[in-house]
Amino acid sequence: MNTRWSGLEQKMKEVGIQTLLITDPKHVYYLTGFLSNPHERFLAAALQLGSEPLLIVPALDEEAARAASDVQDIITHQDTDNPYLILKNHMNGSLGTIGLEKEHVSISRYEQLKDALSFDSYVVDIGPWLRDLRVCKSPEEINKIRHAVHLIEQVLEEALLSVKEGISENELVAEVEYQIRKLGADGPSFDSMVLTGEKTALPHGVPGTRQLSRGDLLMFDIGVYASGYASDITRTFAFGELSEEKRTIYETVLAANEAAIAAIKPGVTYGSIDKAARDVIDEAGYDEYFIHRLGHGLGIDVHEFPSIHGNNEYLLTEGNVFTVEPGIYVPRVGGVRIEDDVLVTHDGVDVLTSFPKKLTYL
Amino acid sequence: MNTRWSGLEQKMKEVGIQTLLITDPKHVYYLTGFLSNPHERFLAAALQLGSEPLLIVPALDEEAARAASDVQDIITHQDTDNPYLILKNHMNGSLGTIGLEKEHVSISRYEQLKDALSFDSYVVDIGPWLRDLRVCKSPEEINKIRHAVHLIEQVLEEALLSVKEGISENELVAEVEYQIRKLGADGPSFDSMVLTGEKTALPHGVPGTRQLSRGDLLMFDIGVYASGYASDITRTFAFGELSEEKRTIYETVLAANEAAIAAIKPGVTYGSIDKAARDVIDEAGYDEYFIHRLGHGLGIDVHEFPSIHGNNEYLLTEGNVFTVEPGIYVPRVGGVRIEDDVLVTHDGVDVLTSFPKKLTYL
Repeated sequence: MNTRWSGLEQKMKEVGIQTLLITDPKHVYYLTGFLSNPHERFLAAALQLGSEPLLIVPALDEEAARAASDVQDIITHQDTDNPYLILKNHMNGSLGTIGLEKEHVSISRYEQLKDALSFDSYVVDIGPWLRDLRVCKSPEEINKIRHAVHLIEQVLEEALLSVKEGISENELVAEVEYQIRKLGADGPSFDSMVLTGEKTALPHGVPGTRQLSRGDLLMFDIGVYASGYASDITRTFAFGELSEEKRTIYETVLAANEAAIAAIKPGVTYGSIDKAARDVIDEAGYDEYFIHRLGHGLGIDVHEFPSIHGNNEYLLTEGNVFTVEPGIYVPRVGGVRIEDDVLVTHDGVDVLTSFPKKLTYL
Repeated sequence: MNTRWSGLEQKMKEVGIQTLLITDPKHVYYLTGFLSNPHERFLAAALQLGSEPLLIVPALDEEAARAASDVQDIITHQDTDNPYLILKNHMNGSLGTIGLEKEHVSISRYEQLKDALSFDSYVVDIGPWLRDLRVCKSPEEINKIRHAVHLIEQVLEEALLSVKEGISENELVAEVEYQIRKLGADGPSFDSMVLTGEKTALPHGVPGTRQLSRGDLLMFDIGVYASGYASDITRTFAFGELSEEKRTIYETVLAANEAAIAAIKPGVTYGSIDKAARDVIDEAGYDEYFIHRLGHGLGIDVHEFPSIHGNNEYLLTEGNVFTVEPGIYVPRVGGVRIEDDVLVTHDGVDVLTSFPKKLTYL
């Protein structure tokens, strides 16, 4: 049993529950090393107090599960089986009080589980337990994130070679995703975003046929999954000369990004990091144009706990990995966002992204 | 109120329920015309007997929802609101018995809904109602699927221009996805699959660094989403001369594909279509190598109801759209799959895919 399981076992004893059933594929990966998207099929890791963990997988994934996982007890089901009954037959006696991820289990699956397995109707939500475990990354996880960051920075470097007057946002997205595949990442970690000109003022803008022209801001917000871990970076460039206003916006966002990073160390609140960036933008008079949170946790999911906003009183701890991405979006002028991925160290911060942030004219 | 809503209203009266709450974004799109991925935010369409439908969306999607939807009553919520309370305030009196999509609503959301809205604890699963509505496509939907098919066939044509000795599977996937973006589709409808050589014998194979060489089979299984509808096509090619066994496999799969298509007309069972293809493969002695179902429904989702396997007694109806994709996979030799998208017409079938199926030597 690895230390992640032992952490859960400890919580089970504290809370007084006898059985855990984990069905979010990202959590199964976190606990067992086996990453898979089972689509509508049933995939779960289970733990009963006093027993070793077991893994139940669709039969066609058995070989992959045995190769990837350190769980010894792997059971399988065919499409014609009731997987919940097979699971029940491999568990010991009554399940007692059970812990489930309430945000991941649908009503329909809950009803099927309840029919097949006998457990108390009082169910404990273990989503927060896994969230709290995942928020501190191990050295191995940090290496995987570093690799995903390295890949996306290479992608960005390659994609910049295609930038020229008249190229469309869609063509630049195509170029980014071509490089992501060519470098062998698992794939993009979210819809790759390339925006140009006044469209950079839309934080949820969708790339389209707009063509790049002189005087435009050009924004890339891109990331990859690699070995199951995500990266996420934003850089904004000048295509040709920029107006004074756009240069001021850029320098303000860069100062906000740097102020937030300078504030990072264990023991301070996530809210204070957001505030450090927001203060810089407020002082420059752009407060009404920084309309989103500072960032989000990063790991097995590209957006994971915590959400970094002004009211977040959660404390930074060594091993936390998250994004720092202040932005200013002025309608009909343009927007700038500069996003880094950072790791909290024992006495400060390690910025995982290394792509230059000084205003670059392409 | 459009005819899709009236169909649901009819069912509400038959079953005796007073309120519908629809939260699967694909179902919201189907009923309202507004397509969006709300991530963790709350998006729903609701209907009370005797009232007009309403739509509740995150505030930042309001403009897009008003532009895309024919629902008049659109209400919004901010990230700091309880969206379930806002919904309750816009509904009339007691909700009575409610219908939910039990496969889509998590335990956690169900508990939040139950806390905020007052409804009976007996809940009806309306997933099957929507499934039954969606299985017959309207002329407008068929046009969108035709367009998605047209785009993926253009992508395949372009991608074939890159085929050369030594190119890797990953590079061909990159080329496919580049063309998907360049042609302006919404994106791939599933993980684009390009396999070469003996890897074509893995129906769940993952593209990698294997390089194409003379005598290989080369399989593309690719699709796009466009205007919210999916296409899905597989073609297998010869790269250079093929062994006699591989040619036999190819001709058998092609005959199975054609036999299934010839069997399609309203009123026959889905099982009989699967059987038409399987009989051809059995007769050729390859029965143990056709290890998956014949196909699946296609529309707003790339895999939707029905699942086309031998035990499916559901009857084909005019307007059904699905895939026909028999395959033979011989370990260490190679595999062939030929997949078309088809529409059931009033007296037969319209094959939506038109890419040539005769064995092609590249």
